[in-house]
Amino acid sequence: MGYPMASNLFKKLGPSKFWVLDHSEPVALKFKQEHGNVHVATKASKIAEECSVIVTMLPASAHVRQVYLGENGLLSKLQPNALVIDSSTIDPSTSKEVSSILEKQGATMLDAPVSGGTLGAQAGTLTFMVGAKTPESFEQSKLILEHMGKNIVYCGLPGTGQVAKICNNMILGISMVAASEAMNLGVRMGMDPKLLASVINTSSGRCWSTELYNPCPGVLPNVPSSRDYTGGFGVSLMAKDMGLAVNAANETKSTTILASVTHQIYNQVMTTPGYEKKDFSSVFKWLNNNAEKYQ
Amino acid sequence: MGYPMASNLFKKLGPSKFWVLDHSEPVALKFKQEHGNVHVATKASKIAEECSVIVTMLPASAHVRQVYLGENGLLSKLQPNALVIDSSTIDPSTSKEVSSILEKQGATMLDAPVSGGTLGAQAGTLTFMVGAKTPESFEQSKLILEHMGKNIVYCGLPGTGQVAKICNNMILGISMVAASEAMNLGVRMGMDPKLLASVINTSSGRCWSTELYNPCPGVLPNVPSSRDYTGGFGVSLMAKDMGLAVNAANETKSTTILASVTHQIYNQVMTTPGYEKKDFSSVFKWLNNNAEKYQ
Amino acid sequence: MGYPMASNLFKKLGPSKFWVLDHSEPVALKFKQEHGNVHVATKASKIAEECSVIVTMLPASAHVRQVYLGENGLLSKLQPNALVIDSSTIDPSTSKEVSSILEKQGATMLDAPVSGGTLGAQAGTLTFMVGAKTPESFEQSKLILEHMGKNIVYCGLPGTGQVAKICNNMILGISMVAASEAMNLGVRMGMDPKLLASVINTSSGRCWSTELYNPCPGVLPNVPSSRDYTGGFGVSLMAKDMGLAVNAANETKSTTILASVTHQIYNQVMTTPGYEKKDFSSVFKWLNNNAEKYQ
Amino acid sequence: MGYPMASNLFKKLGPSKFWVLDHSEPVALKFKQEHGNVHVATKASKIAEECSVIVTMLPASAHVRQVYLGENGLLSKLQPNALVIDSSTIDPSTSKEVSSILEKQGATMLDAPVSGGTLGAQAGTLTFMVGAKTPESFEQSKLILEHMGKNIVYCGLPGTGQVAKICNNMILGISMVAASEAMNLGVRMGMDPKLLASVINTSSGRCWSTELYNPCPGVLPNVPSSRDYTGGFGVSLMAKDMGLAVNAANETKSTTILASVTHQIYNQVMTTPGYEKKDFSSVFKWLNNNAEKYQ
Repeated sequence: MGYPMASNLFKKLGPSKFWVLDHSEPVALKFKQEHGNVHVATKASKIAEECSVIVTMLPASAHVRQVYLGENGLLSKLQPNALVIDSSTIDPSTSKEVSSILEKQGATMLDAPVSGGTLGAQAGTLTFMVGAKTPESFEQSKLILEHMGKNIVYCGLPGTGQVAKICNNMILGISMVAASEAMNLGVRMGMDPKLLASVINTSSGRCWSTELYNPCPGVLPNVPSSRDYTGGFGVSLMAKDMGLAVNAANETKSTTILASVTHQIYNQVMTTPGYEKKDFSSVFKWLNNNAEKYQ
Repeated sequence: MGYPMASNLFKKLGPSKFWVLDHSEPVALKFKQEHGNVHVATKASKIAEECSVIVTMLPASAHVRQVYLGENGLLSKLQPNALVIDSSTIDPSTSKEVSSILEKQGATMLDAPVSGGTLGAQAGTLTFMVGAKTPESFEQSKLILEHMGKNIVYCGLPGTGQVAKICNNMILGISMVAASEAMNLGVRMGMDPKLLASVINTSSGRCWSTELYNPCPGVLPNVPSSRDYTGGFGVSLMAKDMGLAVNAANETKSTTILASVTHQIYNQVMTTPGYEKKDFSSVFKWLNNNAEKYQ
Repeated sequence: MGYPMASNLFKKLGPSKFWVLDHSEPVALKFKQEHGNVHVATKASKIAEECSVIVTMLPASAHVRQVYLGENGLLSKLQPNALVIDSSTIDPSTSKEVSSILEKQGATMLDAPVSGGTLGAQAGTLTFMVGAKTPESFEQSKLILEHMGKNIVYCGLPGTGQVAKICNNMILGISMVAASEAMNLGVRMGMDPKLLASVINTSSGRCWSTELYNPCPGVLPNVPSSRDYTGGFGVSLMAKDMGLAVNAANETKSTTILASVTHQIYNQVMTTPGYEKKDFSSVFKWLNNNAEKYQ
Repeated sequence: MGYPMASNLFKKLGPSKFWVLDHSEPVALKFKQEHGNVHVATKASKIAEECSVIVTMLPASAHVRQVYLGENGLLSKLQPNALVIDSSTIDPSTSKEVSSILEKQGATMLDAPVSGGTLGAQAGTLTFMVGAKTPESFEQSKLILEHMGKNIVYCGLPGTGQVAKICNNMILGISMVAASEAMNLGVRMGMDPKLLASVINTSSGRCWSTELYNPCPGVLPNVPSSRDYTGGFGVSLMAKDMGLAVNAANETKSTTILASVTHQIYNQVMTTPGYEKKDFSSVFKWLNNNAEKYQ
């Protein structure tokens, strides 16, 4: 995700000073080679030293802690008044905590997780859900984020960007399993899958998963289910997001029965041989084991 | 449901011969009083004797068996070539079985369960999902159903109307719990519920339950959640529909993990003191127990 | 199950008149060949005509309805005062209904489902859980059942034998999944499985599944988990019993969240390639997918 | 728990130097008053300075981090060669991490969570599940733990004491819900609860929850269910332990479908008005809502 986002940012910001850092140095060097006029850092602290606006995109909470607060991390050399935007999807409490530590140093940190996937990152059409201490800092960040996305949504105080993201994704994760169970059941009971999808999509079962990302092969062209669940959003990434939702729920004593079960379903699917690299809609295929015997 | 449907039918069919039967005779008499020129039957067999087109709307599979196949039931006096439309939501296997028995008598029976609720029934804007042995019999039934609904959808062979209905409703039931868990979590974590709903509705968590029937009070006007969950679609009706889905799944060896858990959630909600007569979106309130302590 | 039960019964009852009937006639003929002095029936009604004491063992509710109430069924020729014992595991409401129909003919019907498996059937050590209208009829049945089992337990009115059986088996089915999840987790976190089992078995996690039928290979000798889950009680039979529990729960508005999820887990396991003929404790293996990657 | 454990320890160790520290100083002072010849500390570091053998009992991982690694924590003044035993139930990864930090300082830290409840703590009959780097350090700790418990079980390397505890408790938590669902179902279907319990306890559904802690009122005397679920092990404590199991499962990619659902059930029960201070077996009562209407 980080690469195409940085690429769009670079293209829009023109010839200004631009530093990049990737966990894998060859990736950073490739970026420099492709875009020219880019500096490559090998430590986060170097980025902090050189830049007053910083955008990060990291896989999980532990990496955010490391890059921000760890040895040679951003915090160690952070410029006062720096504007730092973290687009990682991590747990809201880590987001709030890191933001509050940076703020004590005079910097401003916003959480701005994205939706839209790698395709959205390439096209510059991502949605950013932004948590910011003040509307002013949100407006500041918007000027940056607009170069990488289309919808920049203000969600409230630091951490609420993460909250919005995980609440959205937990519904997505659940409704994909729901759509898979329903399509599988309907087909086994003799309905044509396209017809079933069209009935649902004009009725109260309609959701993003049935309309735009139907998990049953052949219903929609150009979605993962129609190319054996390749591409798309990996089942292990969805398992990670469901885990964030469940953790956040536990911290606030919110009951999440379906999110918890769904989390475990994705855990089971992703460890089933053959499913590790599949799109999350492959839960349909997983449910549809041996279908030919029962139809 | 049956009353307003019959009312619309009567208004459109004009002065033709019209018979009604209700489990509660006063209801049938009230219909006659209100509409005039209507005959009231006290046995289903009388209806079968008098009418060549029959529409039924019954609570559950057992009632359909009773009214169609039981003592003094429709079957006992059915006219050859009668057209019989059952709009009850029941399990697909009962639907198929009764249809096949009637067919042996020369009649045509279609399953045509509805979505749209009592408001849709009154307004004549119901959706009918129709299972019919032939496209011709579907077209025949459409001429009748159009007087009571707006969308008349052909779903395939007898029983597939039921299949479409329960597949749709199982997604609805699951996504309502998903929406409730997510809205509850987001609010407890400090997000404004309207803002959270608007983020979800422009992203991949979007579904009928978040957009048109949001379970969190105050997000939408004129939905049950904004009037303490009165009106709408009762939690016990949703529990019944989830049960139909789970039964159908068992018959076809289709795994329905989320539908089963959701079925039990509605079972538990509907037996919780204070929830028996609430709309099914009251699962939000049920999850939100003691929220003030944890927010 | 029926064969060894009948065999024990024949051995104890000595040279008295003895009729057998099996869905597969060669099985019945083999029984005659092996035991001699046995009559083979080809219709249930013949059994009813000839015998005043009848024991049945059938796979599911539908078969019980067929054999008792169907064409050429027991009911058609039942002797007044016949004593009929049904050892099938079926849903309690069917049991009650058939019993009450037979009673109107003057016969006495008891439900007496068993636990103990094929090994218990061969050894004559089965447990029978008996529902009977009167203590007297229970005592009568006991004289017969003692030839096939060791514990003959009176559970109450007709149907309660089934109730006891499904309540027991739903705990068994759930605790086997619980034991599998816990053993899998413990082993992945570095504990020796035998040591973990011994800690659990001397503490509050102790249950039949951890003590006598541990699902983790190598913990106990002579259980299915130590011979790649062959033999034992098939996963599809457990799925059937969980389904009976869930159905009974629905009829009485009893919430069964864990039983419902567990039912679906067994449904999923039994349709996973390679698991169809495995013992129900193979849920451990199913959970343990790709374990080598994560340990 | 800590108070009676310390009391037993003090009684057995006789007049040796004895320091205590409690989060609530009055509790520590009461201990001194009751036992005499006891020193009261106000900081963990003071304990570390004065004692070469230390036992801690804390509510959760965060408290362990604070008391061991925080400001004025044990680590700051730890004696080389100190023997430190933590009897808290916390997540295994925190246990391992803290143990490894202390070890770098030359100390030995063991995890030794307990089972047996406050009654066991008072009677000195607790079970300790011990994780220790070497068998020698386990033997050393055993000399201390024997003063407070009856069974001191060696589980393996640091962290495995926690692993054994949470694996045991997750089976306990699940089987209690299973027992509650089954007893509730059986009773609603007309079985006498004592009779049902006795059938289960001689069959394959037998578990600690049905035999020794039956959740259905009236089956056993002297258990929480027979005194409106007072005393015993609080539902929120069980929710905490289920949460530890689920977290550990996520870290090791172990699927825990039933543990996750059960975790959420206890979450929901403990936030239901009237249940916050109840024993965890009150899940029976929660399921049994409105039972009188459905029986």
